Amino acid sequence: MSALRAGVAARPATLSASRVATRRSFATSRNMRMAAAASEKSFFPGEPEAPTVKTAIPGPKTKQHIEELTQVFDTRSMNMLADYTKSKGNYIADPDGNVLLDVFAQIASIAIGYNNPALIKAASSPEMVSAIVNRPALGAFPSHDWAELLKSSLLTVAPRGLDHVFTAMTGSDANETAYKAAFMYRRQLERGGPDVEFTAQELESAMLNQAPGAPELSILSFKTGFHGRLFGSLSTTRSKAVHKIDIPAFDWPQATFPKLKYPLEDNVEENRKIEQASLDEVEHLIKNYRLPPCAVVVEPVQSEGGDNHASPDFFRKLRALTKKHNILLIVDEVQTGVGATGKFWAHEHWNLETPPDIVTFSKKAQAAGFYYGDAAIRPNKPYRQFNTWMGDPSRAILFKAIVDEINRLDLVNHTARVGDYLYGELEGLSRKYPGQFQNLRGKGQGTFIAFDNPKRDQFLAKSKALGVNIGGSGTDAIRLRPMLIFQQKHADILLDTVEKIAKE
Amino acid sequence: MSALRAGVAARPATLSASRVATRRSFATSRNMRMAAAASEKSFFPGEPEAPTVKTAIPGPKTKQHIEELTQVFDTRSMNMLADYTKSKGNYIADPDGNVLLDVFAQIASIAIGYNNPALIKAASSPEMVSAIVNRPALGAFPSHDWAELLKSSLLTVAPRGLDHVFTAMTGSDANETAYKAAFMYRRQLERGGPDVEFTAQELESAMLNQAPGAPELSILSFKTGFHGRLFGSLSTTRSKAVHKIDIPAFDWPQATFPKLKYPLEDNVEENRKIEQASLDEVEHLIKNYRLPPCAVVVEPVQSEGGDNHASPDFFRKLRALTKKHNILLIVDEVQTGVGATGKFWAHEHWNLETPPDIVTFSKKAQAAGFYYGDAAIRPNKPYRQFNTWMGDPSRAILFKAIVDEINRLDLVNHTARVGDYLYGELEGLSRKYPGQFQNLRGKGQGTFIAFDNPKRDQFLAKSKALGVNIGGSGTDAIRLRPMLIFQQKHADILLDTVEKIAKE
Repeated sequence: MSALRAGVAARPATLSASRVATRRSFATSRNMRMAAAASEKSFFPGEPEAPTVKTAIPGPKTKQHIEELTQVFDTRSMNMLADYTKSKGNYIADPDGNVLLDVFAQIASIAIGYNNPALIKAASSPEMVSAIVNRPALGAFPSHDWAELLKSSLLTVAPRGLDHVFTAMTGSDANETAYKAAFMYRRQLERGGPDVEFTAQELESAMLNQAPGAPELSILSFKTGFHGRLFGSLSTTRSKAVHKIDIPAFDWPQATFPKLKYPLEDNVEENRKIEQASLDEVEHLIKNYRLPPCAVVVEPVQSEGGDNHASPDFFRKLRALTKKHNILLIVDEVQTGVGATGKFWAHEHWNLETPPDIVTFSKKAQAAGFYYGDAAIRPNKPYRQFNTWMGDPSRAILFKAIVDEINRLDLVNHTARVGDYLYGELEGLSRKYPGQFQNLRGKGQGTFIAFDNPKRDQFLAKSKALGVNIGGSGTDAIRLRPMLIFQQKHADILLDTVEKIAKE
Repeated sequence: MSALRAGVAARPATLSASRVATRRSFATSRNMRMAAAASEKSFFPGEPEAPTVKTAIPGPKTKQHIEELTQVFDTRSMNMLADYTKSKGNYIADPDGNVLLDVFAQIASIAIGYNNPALIKAASSPEMVSAIVNRPALGAFPSHDWAELLKSSLLTVAPRGLDHVFTAMTGSDANETAYKAAFMYRRQLERGGPDVEFTAQELESAMLNQAPGAPELSILSFKTGFHGRLFGSLSTTRSKAVHKIDIPAFDWPQATFPKLKYPLEDNVEENRKIEQASLDEVEHLIKNYRLPPCAVVVEPVQSEGGDNHASPDFFRKLRALTKKHNILLIVDEVQTGVGATGKFWAHEHWNLETPPDIVTFSKKAQAAGFYYGDAAIRPNKPYRQFNTWMGDPSRAILFKAIVDEINRLDLVNHTARVGDYLYGELEGLSRKYPGQFQNLRGKGQGTFIAFDNPKRDQFLAKSKALGVNIGGSGTDAIRLRPMLIFQQKHADILLDTVEKIAKE
């Protein structure tokens, strides 16, 4: 363990030497990084050294499995059929013996590698077995060790200032329960506090789905944002029409998310104006929208919408606006949370004066839910925020094991460093092949890096054929979502692959 | 195994002897049933013989745990804090050494007992460990054995005529994805088929949460129904105001659910009229509601709403109405499914001419999702019904083990028989203490039995103090939700306890 930490700590010097070299000569840089990577100790003993591509993907055996699966399950959105028993660390395997470096990681939801020994240990423990076979209705029959489990898992990594957690099952569910909390909080304020009883009219109209019981309030979200696909969350999702068409939606407002120009250093003044215009639109909607927003929900990086970033200054001002108008700020960290941006929570990059009111999480946490600070966000009566399972202790046990491993290997700081390295190298490539690596973004954001490519889908297909599984988002973004155990040696494989494609 | 089956098969004669006895003399009946129960072989070796109550509940140790938990989790809806490591079969334990017969079973979600050895085996298997640590994004990266797992788990118990399944995470989620499927199906019909492309206007308006892209359509549900608590499902939930107040809702229609009069045999004509009035209201709403319903959602027994039953004839006519108006029938079997009514799916009691269009499930299945028959209910394009996890293979593995055990022990037929016994005995009690066991209902519905009590909450508190954990629902219903391994000996403990309370 100390050897691993020492290995990590020693790397920055190498990286910055490499970045300097990049600026001088790309060819020299590659030799240097190869040498650096070779001396790098693996976080994942026994992981493959490189991808193996034996057949076209899908290969013949995989095709048989797909044919069988199509009879009972929708396979049209399938990217790749996998054999998880043969997958390891950063590498995903398929039934034909192909083994790919995976920098998509189940849509950013695998934190520390396939078949991670620490997770296998946790998943085989008596605690896990009990949690699986004796699944409780947590709100009504919590187990005697639920407090201890919460304290040693979800709450050890609670965002600063947010000491409470509400557990849920998925990202959509986490966001919707957060929205419900926001509506109840707002109505409580309007009503005059937690002790003011509901009126008969409120109770009766709620049963009719009518105001005032079902209030004429809204959640403000951003264009190109994604917050889930159930009815409430989908009403705040503005990513693609195919996500929304034919589904009834609430008439809630959307503001334009800043669409920054790159490189950032060449567009400082214009980007400042773009962000200010977005903030002005937010304030206008808060003040004037027919259904007043009780909260603003925002992703630190709009992920499904194409990896759209905004500056810390934008988010600080957004926070100030929500404070000014006394509405909640909900930060949706379903995709950005748990380390990939080089901070455990991406909103830590913003240096806010006051924390967000609510932070939602899922994906890499494997568990899901929302954190909050103000105790008044807990509804004034029981059963208002309630359901049968209210989360899942087995997932809290898994999250605990993930967090313990992140701490043991210092993986958040590691990801910040390897992200800096990867970004520097991609910057070199973007100068060499400017048409292939457009709008490179995510500097200083760990491995949460993206670029645009006009032939994105072909790019991703070629990459897979070369042994690297990469994801897309938005209309032409290539988004990198490696795991937290992604190291320089993996970055080098990725870089060589994308350069090979760019060269063609 | 054959001995167990023989034991079950031998029981009906005993039961009907007992029921005859009940009519003659309640005291004699009790002696007879005690004798019958003593010879009954346990489904769950090592299970306690009877409840143990050592302290007030909550006891001193439990209180300490509650105090600790309250700091980080909402405990106001807590019914009882449990120690699942010490719970076994039908018995739930707490940290003070109290062991209660549990006929609430985690809000009807534990199928075959705490710490069931067959489930422990499944939960400890290499397949389970892999499913937990390598959780896939099923829509994009399904595993090579996903088809096989679906076929050997969820699909082995698919309702007749419904060969496809869409997997989800919870009951709310299952219902909301079913609603989405219904909206897409309806719009596809209106559009002229799966090959007709969306118009530019539809695509653009969907992004604005406006019609026609976000259609002005609805889901019709029933008063006192419960379908979940996210924004779409909550819009169809009409159980209690505390579930709905302060949460925005869609302006969707509700019809009155028949509120039958008991005993049924004395109210045949009046109940027929009550059901016809409900059907007339449904048809009126289908034809006239401002936002046309694209589906009717209904529970076979309205559970949270107070265990409201309707006749098979009502449901057959409801099916005919949906067929007549070409809208979908969604049967919400989240609470009724998986055997407790004496059929695997409660809607099997109806003998429908054509199966429901969609059946949703969760709870005792531990997995969740919806079954459907018509392939056109699968959307015409990929990514329309999609999310990161789309279910959970680890829960499919668990469901498979539950189904295997249900089959091995013939637990659905067993539950039909033990339910008949329990109902017969309760009928005797209801004649002896008519004020305490009002509107007894659930005859021929397995153990899915309920009655009303004017002092319901006190009744449940006394029952707990006497070592039996029972649940309530609606305003004054006492609903019985034992597991499928609930046997005559457990029924006798339950019966003695409720009689003791009734006597006081």
